[in-house]
Amino acid sequence: VKQVGIVGLGLIGGSLALAIRRARPGEFRVLGYTRTAANAERASRMGIVDEVADSPVSAVTGAELAIVATPISATRDIFQQIAGCLPSGCIVTDVCSTKTEVMEWAEECLPQDVRFVGGHPMAGKETSGIEGAEVGLFDGCTYCLIPGERTSPESLQWMTDFVQGIGARPLVISASEHDEFVAGVSHLPFFVAAALVSATSSTPGWSQMSQLAAGGYRDTTRLALQNPQLGRDMCLTNQRNILWWIDNFAQQLGRFRDVIAADPKAVEGMLMDARRARQQWLEEHAKND
Amino acid sequence: VKQVGIVGLGLIGGSLALAIRRARPGEFRVLGYTRTAANAERASRMGIVDEVADSPVSAVTGAELAIVATPISATRDIFQQIAGCLPSGCIVTDVCSTKTEVMEWAEECLPQDVRFVGGHPMAGKETSGIEGAEVGLFDGCTYCLIPGERTSPESLQWMTDFVQGIGARPLVISASEHDEFVAGVSHLPFFVAAALVSATSSTPGWSQMSQLAAGGYRDTTRLALQNPQLGRDMCLTNQRNILWWIDNFAQQLGRFRDVIAADPKAVEGMLMDARRARQQWLEEHAKND
Repeated sequence: VKQVGIVGLGLIGGSLALAIRRARPGEFRVLGYTRTAANAERASRMGIVDEVADSPVSAVTGAELAIVATPISATRDIFQQIAGCLPSGCIVTDVCSTKTEVMEWAEECLPQDVRFVGGHPMAGKETSGIEGAEVGLFDGCTYCLIPGERTSPESLQWMTDFVQGIGARPLVISASEHDEFVAGVSHLPFFVAAALVSATSSTPGWSQMSQLAAGGYRDTTRLALQNPQLGRDMCLTNQRNILWWIDNFAQQLGRFRDVIAADPKAVEGMLMDARRARQQWLEEHAKND
Repeated sequence: VKQVGIVGLGLIGGSLALAIRRARPGEFRVLGYTRTAANAERASRMGIVDEVADSPVSAVTGAELAIVATPISATRDIFQQIAGCLPSGCIVTDVCSTKTEVMEWAEECLPQDVRFVGGHPMAGKETSGIEGAEVGLFDGCTYCLIPGERTSPESLQWMTDFVQGIGARPLVISASEHDEFVAGVSHLPFFVAAALVSATSSTPGWSQMSQLAAGGYRDTTRLALQNPQLGRDMCLTNQRNILWWIDNFAQQLGRFRDVIAADPKAVEGMLMDARRARQQWLEEHAKND
């Protein structure tokens, strides 16, 4: 029986624990650490892990695989805490939604003889925290794997198999490309959704206007419910890409604005192009749910 | 048995037919007209109406209630076609997503002795057309009613009862306020979603980047799947409000951009405000689904 140590049992860490135990029953023993007593109690009660560990160090001591599933802003500190007790040859990964800085932290903090492979499952839901943990969260989702200085070909292959084992689709990608891409498809939509809520809810007529908001508003603004701290951490570690994407988006919106102002009929063609691209994406890539 | 004539059996017209027959079984006889033979065949096969009419005129002749459920751009023409055969005292309504021009068309085209009450159910879904019609589409949704020159207190009350009868929540509102409000909560999100798809899908890296797009991207861009012709009609009949809302939104997004550029940490507070407003909206107004 091999040991997996997970530091951080939120939505992602908790769901990983469940998915690992479903995928390979009896093969792994999952130890999990979570910061608060309330969460530790929940992890036990919900049967998320085989054992609740009382510190990050005790979760990863003796582990074959160590998963750091904390918020970005806590990750460097956890790397430092566990660095001294990771077994030689142990594979270490994280789940952060930005990767360039995390890869640097790993190289700075972790010993030479562990294999670090950056990780980012493209999965999420409205209910954050351990309460939202579910065994099928990663089914069919893209799971980015980022090789770095501490990655060997064997450890990358091991992580690829591992990701497939929990039902996700591994995608090996560089940290810089990852951060460019997620700024467009994940961080930008977050700020767009938040700005849309700000624009609408700050107008004097909002109390009446809000009654007319329906399913379209609900979907377009759903990401505004995401954790504000996550948004801050994205900006702190991926600022340049986020600014580039906001500017690019603002330019496209300006193009729509100009056409609507000058020749409203012509907006139909632009909307047709957008619909076609959106349909194509759905057909090719979307998780079937 | 009273007669309801529906001109246009798309998503809204078809769902209204189903909802009326569920709400008041035996009380109404629903006649529906649809432009294409294929749709007429579907309406019969799916049991949408009691009888398929062969023209707009035959659908509304003898009707107690005439519902014009065509796209905005066809509505004025339908008003003209049916004007000569509407029974005196008949209530006429529409389902258009902009109201100022529609109210003018009604006053210009319809005879003095019919009671016109503008209507706009705030409901929709991805599957447009009669294939998407469902009996529960209006359950719990806000249904705007717009009084005009042809509206009597009795006809407004009748429509209010009617809307409640099909499970929706009537909201009496002026055409100008309606058009301002929907431009913010419905039209703006449409163009934001389309611009987001344009911005992301037009970049060189899109074929790889699209693999990282997940649930957040899917939700935020869902409205880009809406009918482009509807977008054109919105712009043709609600241009000024849409431009105002795009500018207001761009200003809010610019505020986010400036904070991210100058002091990334400070974005957390802005995101907290947006999340709070979004949560409050959901608790107070969202259709429970």
